[in-house]
Amino acid sequence: MSTNFSVVGKSLPRSDARIKAVGAARYCDDIIRPGMLFGKILRSPVAHAKILNIDVSKAKALPGVKSVITADDTLKIRFGNWRLVPESQDELPLATDKVRFIGDEVAAVAAIDKDIAEEALSLIKVDYEELPGAFSVDESMAEGAPVIHEANPNNISLQRKIDYGDLDQGFADSHLILDNEFTVHATSHAYMEPCSCVAEYDHDGRLTIWTSTQTPYFVQCLLAQTLGMRENDIRVIKPFVGGGFGGKMELRKWEFCAAFMARETGRPVKFTLTRSEELTTGRRRHPMKIRSKIGFSKDGIILAKEFTAYLDGGAYNSMGPTAAFLCGNFGGMLYRHPNYRYNGYHVYTNKPPAGAMRGFGAPQALFVAETQMNMAAQELGMDPLDIRLKNAMVTGDEIPGVAKISSCGFKESLLKVAEMTNWREKRKNLKKGQGIGIGCYSFISGGVFNWFNTRYNFTRAEVRAFDDGTVHLLTMASDIGQGCDTVLRQILAEELGLEVKDIRLTAADTAVTPQADLGTWGSRVTLMAGNAVRKAAAEIKEQLFKVVSMKFDLNVIHDMACKDGRIYAKNRPDRGIDFGEAVRLAQRANRGDPIIGYGSYTPRNKGLVTPAFSFGAQVAEVEVDLETGAIEVKEMNTAHDCGTPINPMSVEGQLEGSVHMGLGYALSEQFIMKGGKTLTSTFLDYKIPCAEDMPPGKSVHIDTYEPEGPFGAKEAGEGLVSPTAPAIADAVCHATGYRCMDLPITPEKVLKGLGKL
Amino acid sequence: MSTNFSVVGKSLPRSDARIKAVGAARYCDDIIRPGMLFGKILRSPVAHAKILNIDVSKAKALPGVKSVITADDTLKIRFGNWRLVPESQDELPLATDKVRFIGDEVAAVAAIDKDIAEEALSLIKVDYEELPGAFSVDESMAEGAPVIHEANPNNISLQRKIDYGDLDQGFADSHLILDNEFTVHATSHAYMEPCSCVAEYDHDGRLTIWTSTQTPYFVQCLLAQTLGMRENDIRVIKPFVGGGFGGKMELRKWEFCAAFMARETGRPVKFTLTRSEELTTGRRRHPMKIRSKIGFSKDGIILAKEFTAYLDGGAYNSMGPTAAFLCGNFGGMLYRHPNYRYNGYHVYTNKPPAGAMRGFGAPQALFVAETQMNMAAQELGMDPLDIRLKNAMVTGDEIPGVAKISSCGFKESLLKVAEMTNWREKRKNLKKGQGIGIGCYSFISGGVFNWFNTRYNFTRAEVRAFDDGTVHLLTMASDIGQGCDTVLRQILAEELGLEVKDIRLTAADTAVTPQADLGTWGSRVTLMAGNAVRKAAAEIKEQLFKVVSMKFDLNVIHDMACKDGRIYAKNRPDRGIDFGEAVRLAQRANRGDPIIGYGSYTPRNKGLVTPAFSFGAQVAEVEVDLETGAIEVKEMNTAHDCGTPINPMSVEGQLEGSVHMGLGYALSEQFIMKGGKTLTSTFLDYKIPCAEDMPPGKSVHIDTYEPEGPFGAKEAGEGLVSPTAPAIADAVCHATGYRCMDLPITPEKVLKGLGKL
Repeated sequence: MSTNFSVVGKSLPRSDARIKAVGAARYCDDIIRPGMLFGKILRSPVAHAKILNIDVSKAKALPGVKSVITADDTLKIRFGNWRLVPESQDELPLATDKVRFIGDEVAAVAAIDKDIAEEALSLIKVDYEELPGAFSVDESMAEGAPVIHEANPNNISLQRKIDYGDLDQGFADSHLILDNEFTVHATSHAYMEPCSCVAEYDHDGRLTIWTSTQTPYFVQCLLAQTLGMRENDIRVIKPFVGGGFGGKMELRKWEFCAAFMARETGRPVKFTLTRSEELTTGRRRHPMKIRSKIGFSKDGIILAKEFTAYLDGGAYNSMGPTAAFLCGNFGGMLYRHPNYRYNGYHVYTNKPPAGAMRGFGAPQALFVAETQMNMAAQELGMDPLDIRLKNAMVTGDEIPGVAKISSCGFKESLLKVAEMTNWREKRKNLKKGQGIGIGCYSFISGGVFNWFNTRYNFTRAEVRAFDDGTVHLLTMASDIGQGCDTVLRQILAEELGLEVKDIRLTAADTAVTPQADLGTWGSRVTLMAGNAVRKAAAEIKEQLFKVVSMKFDLNVIHDMACKDGRIYAKNRPDRGIDFGEAVRLAQRANRGDPIIGYGSYTPRNKGLVTPAFSFGAQVAEVEVDLETGAIEVKEMNTAHDCGTPINPMSVEGQLEGSVHMGLGYALSEQFIMKGGKTLTSTFLDYKIPCAEDMPPGKSVHIDTYEPEGPFGAKEAGEGLVSPTAPAIADAVCHATGYRCMDLPITPEKVLKGLGKL
Repeated sequence: MSTNFSVVGKSLPRSDARIKAVGAARYCDDIIRPGMLFGKILRSPVAHAKILNIDVSKAKALPGVKSVITADDTLKIRFGNWRLVPESQDELPLATDKVRFIGDEVAAVAAIDKDIAEEALSLIKVDYEELPGAFSVDESMAEGAPVIHEANPNNISLQRKIDYGDLDQGFADSHLILDNEFTVHATSHAYMEPCSCVAEYDHDGRLTIWTSTQTPYFVQCLLAQTLGMRENDIRVIKPFVGGGFGGKMELRKWEFCAAFMARETGRPVKFTLTRSEELTTGRRRHPMKIRSKIGFSKDGIILAKEFTAYLDGGAYNSMGPTAAFLCGNFGGMLYRHPNYRYNGYHVYTNKPPAGAMRGFGAPQALFVAETQMNMAAQELGMDPLDIRLKNAMVTGDEIPGVAKISSCGFKESLLKVAEMTNWREKRKNLKKGQGIGIGCYSFISGGVFNWFNTRYNFTRAEVRAFDDGTVHLLTMASDIGQGCDTVLRQILAEELGLEVKDIRLTAADTAVTPQADLGTWGSRVTLMAGNAVRKAAAEIKEQLFKVVSMKFDLNVIHDMACKDGRIYAKNRPDRGIDFGEAVRLAQRANRGDPIIGYGSYTPRNKGLVTPAFSFGAQVAEVEVDLETGAIEVKEMNTAHDCGTPINPMSVEGQLEGSVHMGLGYALSEQFIMKGGKTLTSTFLDYKIPCAEDMPPGKSVHIDTYEPEGPFGAKEAGEGLVSPTAPAIADAVCHATGYRCMDLPITPEKVLKGLGKL
């Protein structure tokens, strides 16, 4: 990492820190529009049924009710994020012939207040003919299972494959083969801000919708599709968003209903979900059954791996196709796999659909892969650290036909975290009940494959420079709490030699920010939008260099600098002027037109998966109460390679959040379900870790530079959600001998594993 | 006028017609922001005084009061629209040493509701030392008059001159010389929406202000100046505006106070003026005393004119400098004046400042000039029509060093209105008490002189084209009810071969619309923003022509068309594709970047005044009750030359509005004042005409084509406010023999003129 940066690499406070701290940040539910109506959704109380009849007459007659809609009022156009594969678009804005899970959206009401809307819901009479349900991949794939979507009689909606090398030969050459089955469970995004949106009609054919989303552009396109409107007659604005984690990256049915009813009634319509709706019917991380067969040479070199995942997708595809692919990708990452085969099956069940969630297939794949590495080390009598070092990917490695690793600090991360934790010593010498374990990860910096089938570059930035020394950055990139509003301003400030305070930002408004940005998911924003911002800045600089060059009559070979608020000749810093003055002159040269720069970014020549991979290793230290099975995580330490951290404090915040979410995944969070019904409907039942559950620990950043990233940056903060569960599981095994292959690691399972239950 | 237009020249309903009709259009006072405070202004109760002390302690102590400010809290930076002449900037956001009129802003309060804010005002104690006041230009210019601004000991803040030809020779050659003094009175803009603004701070150094303004860019710049902030740290957004007429084109003190207190308190702050505040303290049309000396040859040819205006500017310059210049310009317009001299004096008085108002100096100048033409006709025994036809300007005429008349339908207007009204017949044969009179006008299509000293082009447009067949027009041009949002879309639709419904518009937001547009005043928008829109459209077309040319392998000499939603070769219409498909291909050619076009406009080589002049003639028919002096306007007919009317229905609406405002100016509206206090504080006292007062009448458009205007268009709707008063005055004179030289024409004056009072 270069140390010449002025703004990049600095732990600057977020630009939204103050407004959030004083409570003045306005989220979607804070929006008040004159004459606004309040919407509520009627959801299916049964997991699988035919809809025989819906009678909304009583609801419509209730005073204060302004609109009641069912599928019959709509165009019944299917939608889904995978526009590239139209047959994957399996959702309707409102259920028509069938409901497929408890919570499936059946009707919507808009009324002058929430209570009336609730009462109206209770007046809608739906006649269901119940059907048998399937609530696990095994049940769904069993002979004679109920068919959930008629287009997929076997309940498998899609299959993804990765296959390279000679798998049979690899296994034939193997000294040790492990062949195990694992299951991983669903968890909730549990974002602090429940979903909310407000739609407003302009009485001239156009709609505006403010919504708590990660992907304004997706919402714009899919709303247009389902409403039968033109894309650009719909404007989507993302206000402050209180977390997303993958749970807010699709068109949601209440967004459709708000837009539809706003158009119908001519009045603004707001929907805000309750926490209970979120927990019982919302998207979640895919539960999976994964079979992994892996072969090693005598000295611990991976020779072959066959990885098969069955994703429990719930009632609809949602982001399952991507999770199915990425799960297989991550099953083959981190280590050199000369021969690898992956089969991923996305299976429908009568449960709330699973979707994208922080890690996006990686937490599941890496729990399995990393646990199996630990099992192999055990079998081969090796230190888990050593078996990893032997197989670890390095810069320049290639996954045939898929990706090239252009920067990799994995080995360094392994060595660093071992040093930080005194790994070798502790691994040998802890007493019974105490354990130390390791888990590793790699993650993507955005995706290459264009499943949304956008016609735009993946991201674009516009930069306007002003003679008051400020610039205005316009981008559709969406800050949902992860901090990209600050990071993009840091990148721009660095590039233009300004300070963050000099940069106004307008973001995430599909009408006025540049077309387009694919949104916040897969850790794509810093690298992709960051690159676009740099290119836009370069266009600004070129214009300013010209006028300074003219003003000082500089020889054409002069290199120019844009630094410390000045534009000057690098070798003659006295020949230069202030940034604002240079803009003023450039505007004179433009005869009054403003100074604007544009930049776009789409990954090119970067394979199928991502422009850049991050890496890291994490070590968990636990103490297990052998009488109760209770697990206390004593410490979590991490070494990771995110390229250049644009804002180290922000990276640290992300890492703390990842550990927190990883802890919940490993130990405490789970949906308790019965016949398709989610019983854990509040945060009293659905147990996310509290602040006091957070273990101490450090994270150390490995010094790498990603050539594809802005100033060398790549993913930070999403990948690290993955190693926590396998590290803890390994530490528990180290402490107790119990090897968890079925998340979460509950005290009951520990005791059972120890033969005490 | 070409008849080949598809959209231009069509009477399309306004794009905001429906939202306004259903009551869903949101004006500034409709804006609700969480935690919003309500602001009120403390105004001076005395016309001229030193401020000895202001005690706000009791107001600050009132529960619910969040901020109380006086000048001492502020930076005390003077401001005004004439940035080019800094010494003309004579206003402070809040009065410091002195107050200069009843209503001068002294302090401001922000509280949790309006009642508390009002109560807090009553708790502010201001000690004044009263000074003698001057309430007319005569009083102000008298020996020993009280000095209102120390920088101008003679109370004349500025003088404007126009001088060409040899005046003395002209008068020496004259057969008839008239030398008269006229007075014209102040009138209120009486816009339906009282001024309102909401300011909000982002807790990161930036402010947003929604305000009922004609000139978002002015507000942005002047707020920055007075707050000591950077221009681009302030965002000004114009919501729907309920009329302006020149009264909302400056930074207003409540805008400053809202912004200042929003920044101070961290909470949104709203100010909305009452109608009474508007009427008693708001801007108004300049009262003037005008002396006009004019010489004619024996056969009625104008040989010389000396025109001297004393503008009663009230306590501050406001837009007085422009009114002072334009008054002189219009004094020399309409007819050929070979020798002309103008002196305009802007005089301070202790009254609410006069500002810009529809006509901007023309209603005053033209009441005088047109009345004097009618007087001259009388003296020379000519028909008022004939004396006009003899002197009328024609296309190609030049005002030396000032302007060139590039299109002129004045003579045609005169002949047409005479024909429409059967003028010659009626002028001779009406019975006593009945009269017919004529008044004419010319007006500007925006100004050339850059008194605001912008560094930007006068206007700029951005057009984004989408593959769904829509385009998005971004412009800072401000619709304040005059209809430019529709007109600009018509111009763009015409240029791109689309329909108005295909065009989304984002306007009048200083952060996201292109830098910059000088706002809505002087009838500048259609011509200037229209030209920018056409240029932006041309950039779009060029991109689309390229891909269609490639797709059909067209010879380079092919002319291309963009019409009826298609792009095609003009001579081979089959070789073409839909607009949206062409955009899709162009975007492919751009490898994903959007299709955008830009256009700017600043008048070049168009003299000092305006790029284009409109012309017209109006005939009033009245019946005067000779016993009571009551005047009934029986009919108003108009023939006018606005170049190509982009939207004839919209032009007609403007003309009706002009007649309405002209009626009020001529007959009923006036501020009754006493010692600087405005007594007409409600619409019960200040009498604007009602719908039932509107006379019938037609308006006919003269077919001209202005080469500088978009599709031949120029000013419509502002100039026509001027001829109404002189036409009515002439008709009254025709009916009664009473020649009004002192507006308004009240029954009392008529009776006095007839010797009956």
